[in-house]
Amino acid sequence: MTTLVLVSHPHLADSTSQQFLKASLPANEDIIWEHIESQPTLDVAKEQDQLRHADRIILQFPLYWYAAPAGLKQWEDTVLTRTFVYGDHRYPLADKELGIVVTTGMPGKAFQRGGAEQITLDAALAPLAAVAERAKMTWLPIFAIHQFAYLEEPEKLQLVVDYQRYLTQEQPDSLGDRQAWFAQRLPEMIKQLPPEQQATGRLIEAEFSQQKDDIDALADTLSLIKEQEDD
Amino acid sequence: MTTLVLVSHPHLADSTSQQFLKASLPANEDIIWEHIESQPTLDVAKEQDQLRHADRIILQFPLYWYAAPAGLKQWEDTVLTRTFVYGDHRYPLADKELGIVVTTGMPGKAFQRGGAEQITLDAALAPLAAVAERAKMTWLPIFAIHQFAYLEEPEKLQLVVDYQRYLTQEQPDSLGDRQAWFAQRLPEMIKQLPPEQQATGRLIEAEFSQQKDDIDALADTLSLIKEQEDD
Repeated sequence: MTTLVLVSHPHLADSTSQQFLKASLPANEDIIWEHIESQPTLDVAKEQDQLRHADRIILQFPLYWYAAPAGLKQWEDTVLTRTFVYGDHRYPLADKELGIVVTTGMPGKAFQRGGAEQITLDAALAPLAAVAERAKMTWLPIFAIHQFAYLEEPEKLQLVVDYQRYLTQEQPDSLGDRQAWFAQRLPEMIKQLPPEQQATGRLIEAEFSQQKDDIDALADTLSLIKEQEDD
Repeated sequence: MTTLVLVSHPHLADSTSQQFLKASLPANEDIIWEHIESQPTLDVAKEQDQLRHADRIILQFPLYWYAAPAGLKQWEDTVLTRTFVYGDHRYPLADKELGIVVTTGMPGKAFQRGGAEQITLDAALAPLAAVAERAKMTWLPIFAIHQFAYLEEPEKLQLVVDYQRYLTQEQPDSLGDRQAWFAQRLPEMIKQLPPEQQATGRLIEAEFSQQKDDIDALADTLSLIKEQEDD
């Protein structure tokens, strides 16, 4: 799967959250990363080619006034020509996934009726969802990072994994898809360990595999019970 | 009342609707008109001063991808600093009216669930409404112009009057406010008529005034009836 990450930020070098996310990009994956504002002029043909080539497109930006920064809107207004998106009833972006990674300076609970911001992220980003709808793309649940500056180290480690999964894991984010994603990456991670920890690594892998089998068995039992209830 | 009209359009000279609206600006009114993209760099202090000075602020633009063009977002991201809008719990824009004049290339009925666009203009422009909310401004109902190119001459004439009222008439757009708006402008309009039409003009003024009295009388009767019903 090819993932295209389009980052919009007017001062990328000054953004600790964006630098953190850049350093968190998964290695050994087919990921194209691009910073929109770094380009002196947008090469429309190149941008459209990148979109055509990608299976998952991620728009990543800080929330400014309940929307993406002007740079991303400029990209939309320039690259997403009508002809490209739905001209002649051809939809080159159809069935591709559109994901949003948005950072905000407020806690998550601010984005609800009665909260400090009085608007949900879903409502604020509805125009982007409408673009996805128009292009016949599949909208992924928004990946929001609130108040990055206040995250503790364990939360940041969790963020790395969640972010990598958002970029590369099969959707929907089901237990099975999550297990498969970890199982695929575990052997590679263990290989990177220093020799004295290899044995521990292999034990973790065996334990993970055992747990996966246990969960599968439990899930099977559960569906059997459900079937009988339905009778 | 001072009205500030901020127009965002990347190619203003090529836009027949924007040129029409510019020609329709009411004369003899306290209106400041500005084209955002015409300015090489945004003078933040000047823009903020203009906002402070205005009673009604109109954002006027074509709908691109369910939002304002990048130029307006750039203006928001640059001019509307946090310090300016709500720093130190001071709200310099509080109680000012924010109006939106938006042109679209689709018929009005496209902007609803089940319509071609699947999103209402209210939902698409919710981020701007959230800005108004944050700044403690009063949000005016959106003034939408659909498919300007297809308007017939009588519809265009109606548009001129409706647009002028949106810019300068007291809100809400009640019958009383509308009558007052016309009554105030009628003598000036009649003065502009050629001499041979002055008599007709004065007859229209008298008729208008008579109708207004009739309506007022009817309204009084109506509220009397309602009062009795409530007893």
